[in-house]
Amino acid sequence: MSVESEAGEERPTSEVTIRLARDGDRARLWQILEPIIREGETYAWPRDLEREAALQMWSAGDAEVFVAELADAVVGTAYLKTNHLGGGDHVANCGYATAGEAEGNGVARALCAHTIERASQRGFRAIQFNFVVSTNLRAVATWERFGFERVGVLPGAFRHPSKGEVDVYVMYRRLEG
Amino acid sequence: MSVESEAGEERPTSEVTIRLARDGDRARLWQILEPIIREGETYAWPRDLEREAALQMWSAGDAEVFVAELADAVVGTAYLKTNHLGGGDHVANCGYATAGEAEGNGVARALCAHTIERASQRGFRAIQFNFVVSTNLRAVATWERFGFERVGVLPGAFRHPSKGEVDVYVMYRRLEG
Repeated sequence: MSVESEAGEERPTSEVTIRLARDGDRARLWQILEPIIREGETYAWPRDLEREAALQMWSAGDAEVFVAELADAVVGTAYLKTNHLGGGDHVANCGYATAGEAEGNGVARALCAHTIERASQRGFRAIQFNFVVSTNLRAVATWERFGFERVGVLPGAFRHPSKGEVDVYVMYRRLEG
Repeated sequence: MSVESEAGEERPTSEVTIRLARDGDRARLWQILEPIIREGETYAWPRDLEREAALQMWSAGDAEVFVAELADAVVGTAYLKTNHLGGGDHVANCGYATAGEAEGNGVARALCAHTIERASQRGFRAIQFNFVVSTNLRAVATWERFGFERVGVLPGAFRHPSKGEVDVYVMYRRLEG
C-alpha cells in the first residue's frame, strides 16, 4: 500500500484548526457521526445508535473531545482518553470522524497530529487503536503515516455490511517522553 | 514454553463444577478478586479499586458471571460478555480469577472450558482476550492450551509493579458454529 500517493492526493493541512469541543458543537458532532454510524462500515457501534447515546459514547470516560475547523466550519472530531485503568493507564485511545463532504482536506491528519501532541502533553506513553477495520484502507494508511503500527490482527472480528466478516487491526504508537 | 508440562502438574478438573453466580456469592467474589487487584500484576485495574466498583466492573455490560466450586466452596469466577457492539458483537470477551489457595486444581481450566461452551451456545463466533499480561505465564499457557492464539502484542502496555513496563497480548479463539 502506497501511503505517500494516498497522502499526495490531499491538500495541505495548514488551513485545518483544532480546538476543544463545546456544548454548542453537539448538533454538528451528531451530523458528522450519524452517517458514519448508519453506514456501519468503520466503527463497532450499533447502526441504529441514537444521538444521545452516540455523543455519550464519543465522550465517555476521561475523554477530551476535539473538533476540526475548516473555513470556520466544524468538519471533523476526535476524542482522546485513557484506554485501560491501573497498570495500563499510560496508554491512550483515540477515535476520529470526518464529515463526508470534507474528506481529502487533511482533516483526519490534523486531528491525528493534534491528539498525538496532546497525549504526550498529558503524559501518556503510547496510543492504542483497539478496533481499526481492515477495509478502512484510507484510515489505516493515514495512521501508518503517523507512526502507528499494526500490532495485532483480529480475524473476522467485524461484520462489514457488504463485505461480511473482515479482519480488524489493533494499532499502536509509542510516544516520546 | 511447555504447555503440557505446565498442565501436567495439575490435578484433573473433574471435581470442579461451574454455575452462575448469585447475589449471595458477592462477598466470596470479592475475597477472590481483592488480592488479585491489590497485587496489580495481571489486570489493568486500579490497585486501590473498592469492592462495589470491582464487582460492578466484573459484571459490566451484558456479562454472565460464573463461579467455580470445589468441594462445595467457591474457588474461582469468570465473566462472559460481548466485547464490542454493532458489527463486532459476534465476538465475546471473558475474564477469569482463581482463589490463591485453590491454584493447581484446574479451576481456570474448568472456567475457560465452560465459557467457551457457553459463548458458543449464545451464538458468539469468537472469544477475544483484550489484555493478557505477558508475564502471566501460567495463564498464557492455559489459554493457549484451549486454542487461544496470541494475535497481537502491545509493547510495554502494562506497568508491572516489580517488572516495569511489560508487553500485553491480545488473544483470540474462533468458535465452531
